[in-house]
Amino acid sequence: MQPAPAAPGQALAEVDTPALIVDLDAYERNLDRMAEFARVAGVRIRPHAKTHKSPVIAAQQVARGAVGVCCQKVSEAEVLVRGGIADVLVSNEVVGATKLARLAKLAHRARISVCVDAPEAVAEIEAAAAAENVRINVLVEIDVGGRRCGVPAGAEAARLAGMIANRKHLAFEGLQAYHGSAQHLRTLDERRAAIAKAVEAVRETQAELAKLGLEARTIAGAGTGTYEIETGSGVYNELQPGSYVFMDADYARNRKGDGTPFDTFEHALFVLATVMSASAPERRVVDAGHKVLPVDSGMPLVWQIPGAIYGRPSDEHGVLDVTACPKPPARGDKVLLVPAHCDPTVNLHDWYVGIRGLGTPSAKVESVWPVAARGAAF
Amino acid sequence: MQPAPAAPGQALAEVDTPALIVDLDAYERNLDRMAEFARVAGVRIRPHAKTHKSPVIAAQQVARGAVGVCCQKVSEAEVLVRGGIADVLVSNEVVGATKLARLAKLAHRARISVCVDAPEAVAEIEAAAAAENVRINVLVEIDVGGRRCGVPAGAEAARLAGMIANRKHLAFEGLQAYHGSAQHLRTLDERRAAIAKAVEAVRETQAELAKLGLEARTIAGAGTGTYEIETGSGVYNELQPGSYVFMDADYARNRKGDGTPFDTFEHALFVLATVMSASAPERRVVDAGHKVLPVDSGMPLVWQIPGAIYGRPSDEHGVLDVTACPKPPARGDKVLLVPAHCDPTVNLHDWYVGIRGLGTPSAKVESVWPVAARGAAF
Repeated sequence: MQPAPAAPGQALAEVDTPALIVDLDAYERNLDRMAEFARVAGVRIRPHAKTHKSPVIAAQQVARGAVGVCCQKVSEAEVLVRGGIADVLVSNEVVGATKLARLAKLAHRARISVCVDAPEAVAEIEAAAAAENVRINVLVEIDVGGRRCGVPAGAEAARLAGMIANRKHLAFEGLQAYHGSAQHLRTLDERRAAIAKAVEAVRETQAELAKLGLEARTIAGAGTGTYEIETGSGVYNELQPGSYVFMDADYARNRKGDGTPFDTFEHALFVLATVMSASAPERRVVDAGHKVLPVDSGMPLVWQIPGAIYGRPSDEHGVLDVTACPKPPARGDKVLLVPAHCDPTVNLHDWYVGIRGLGTPSAKVESVWPVAARGAAF
Repeated sequence: MQPAPAAPGQALAEVDTPALIVDLDAYERNLDRMAEFARVAGVRIRPHAKTHKSPVIAAQQVARGAVGVCCQKVSEAEVLVRGGIADVLVSNEVVGATKLARLAKLAHRARISVCVDAPEAVAEIEAAAAAENVRINVLVEIDVGGRRCGVPAGAEAARLAGMIANRKHLAFEGLQAYHGSAQHLRTLDERRAAIAKAVEAVRETQAELAKLGLEARTIAGAGTGTYEIETGSGVYNELQPGSYVFMDADYARNRKGDGTPFDTFEHALFVLATVMSASAPERRVVDAGHKVLPVDSGMPLVWQIPGAIYGRPSDEHGVLDVTACPKPPARGDKVLLVPAHCDPTVNLHDWYVGIRGLGTPSAKVESVWPVAARGAAF
C-alpha cells in the first residue's frame, strides 16, 4: 500500500499528485438521491461495492437504508465483512474449493449470498457451507441479454433453483437478472428495449419456478444506467447500482428521454494531476496516464478548463491539447480530471482524498479513506 | 496489499486466480539475451523498472551487468532504493517541492538522476539538493518526436544543460532522448525512420553543447521495440528497455525486417484465470476482466488453446469466444492469458507468482515476489 497523498486539513493545492479525489458534497448528494428514489419507489437497494471497494462508503450507504451491498469477488466480500458490513451478496459465480471455503467462513459473521449458473456449483457451495455448518443464500443468475454468465431464462433456471432449495445448507434466494451491457446504451429507448427483454426473461423464469412450487424472494439487478426502468417494471425488487456514488464521464454520455445528458447524479470522483511539462504551446503534459486513469471506456474529461482535451495517454503521462484553450494551465498547476470509468479507476488507487467545498476557495481535505479492497481480485 | 494467491512448492493448478504468473525460465532467458546484447555492443544498459516495479527483478538485472535502473516516479525510486538498488534514474520530469525533497533524500543512499525540460526545474532541483547537501545528476530531456515532455533539440536544450552545469549541487549528465511512440510502429522501416530523426535531434544538440564547452556523458533512450536501432547509431550509449523482461502481446505485433513477428524475447508474463461460467456452448467466461488485464493496448492472447479468442472484457469478466475452438476449456479449468501491455498489467497486481517449468507436468511455484512499487504513482 502506498503512502497517502494528503492529510486532513490540507488545502487542495497541497495534495500530492496523482491523487483520487472525492467531492464529498456531491458524493453525499448522490447517496441521498438514490436512497430517496428507492424509498419512494418501495424497492430495496443493495449498492454495488465493486465500484468503491470501501467499507466506509458501504457503511454510509447502509446508513441511508441500503439492505447491504453486493460485490464481485470473495476477496472483496472479506474486506467488506471485516469492515463491519453485515449483509453481502457476491453477485457473481464463485468457482473453486479454496474460494468457496473462504466464502463460507464469512457466513459466520454476516449474511452471505452468492450466484450460480451451473448445477455443479450447487453441490460445491453446499459442501463448503456444510463444512462450516453455515447457511448460504443462493441466487440463480439468468442471462438476460448480456451473453456473459447466467443460465438461459425459464425451465433450466428453475431446475437450478429446485436443486438449491433441496440442499440443507443453502437457501434459494431468488434471481440475479442484471443486464450489464444495457447500462451504457446511449438512448433511453435502447435501454428500455433491453430491460424489457430482461423483464420478460424474469417473468418466464418466475412462471417455471411456480410450476415447481418455488418463489423468488429477490429479483436483483439494475445499474446506474437503467435502475428506473427495472423499478418501473414492478418485477425487480432489489437494485444493485454502483456508479451513482461517483458518476463517471462514460455515464455522462448516456442520454435521457429528451436527448439531454444523464445528470441525475453529479461527478463526485476526480483524479487530481499536475502539469509536469509545458514545453510546447499546443500541449500540457500531466502526471496522470493510464496507470491511474484507465481508458477502457474512453478518455477522461478535463474539469472546468474550457477547451482543454485529454488524450494520447501513456503509462504515466496524459497530454492535454490546449490549442482551443483560452487560458491553458501553467507548469506546476493542478488540474482535475473526471475518470471515464469509475470502477477500474478506483481500483488503481490506494486512497480516497475527500474534499469538502471543492470548487470554493476554502476547499479542504476532510477525509483520507483507504480503498480497502483495491486489488481484491480473487 | 492483498494476500498472495500462491505459495512456493504449489502446483500451477493450486494457484488461486486471477494471478500474475512469471515463467521464470523464459524470463531469465530474456534477461540474459538483453544483457548479452549490451555486452557485445559495448553499450550500458539501465533497464526500465516502470515495467516490473520490483527491486528483486532490478537486482537480477544489475547482477547481469545493468548499471542501475530507471523509473518514472519518485515513489518508484523510493521503493527501488529501499530495495537495495544503488543507481536510479527518474527518466521523467519531477514537479513540486514535496516530490523533489523526497528525491533529494534518496541521494544520501543511492546515485540519483532525473530529467528536466524547463529552466524553472533547474532552480527547483538545485534548491532540493542544496537542502539535503547532496548531488543530483540531471539529464536534459529533448523531444525526439514523441510530442510529450522534452524541450526542442538544439540550442534550447544546450542552454538548459549550461544552467545545470552552473549549479553547485547538480551535475549535467547528458540527454534523455527516448522515443516512446516509436516503440510500437509495426514495421522495421517505420521504426528506423523514427529513430533516425531522434539520432539527428541528439546530434544537433551535441553540436550546440560543444559550442558551450559541454559534453553529454550519457545519451539515454531506447525501448524494447527499437534498442537495436539506437545502439546501431553509435550515438546512444545507455539503453532503457523495460518490456523485454516479460514481452507482451502488443510487442509481439511488431514485425522484424523480414515481416515475421518480433520474437527476440519470449512471453514470460501471464495472467492465470479460471473458467467461471460455461453456460453457453459458444463462450467461456473467465475471472479476469480489465481490472486485472488492462486493454489500453488491445486484447490479451489466449495461451495455447487453439481457436480461443479473448474479448468483451468488463471489470471482472473476460469472454472467450470458443466457436472456432476444437477443445474448449471446461468450467473450473485454468487458462493462461498473455497481457496486451505488461506495464499497466503488473501495476494491477500485488504479487508475481514465479513458475519453474511452465508448460511441463512438473510446473511448480518457485517464488512469490511482491510488486513492491505497485501503485507507486507520485
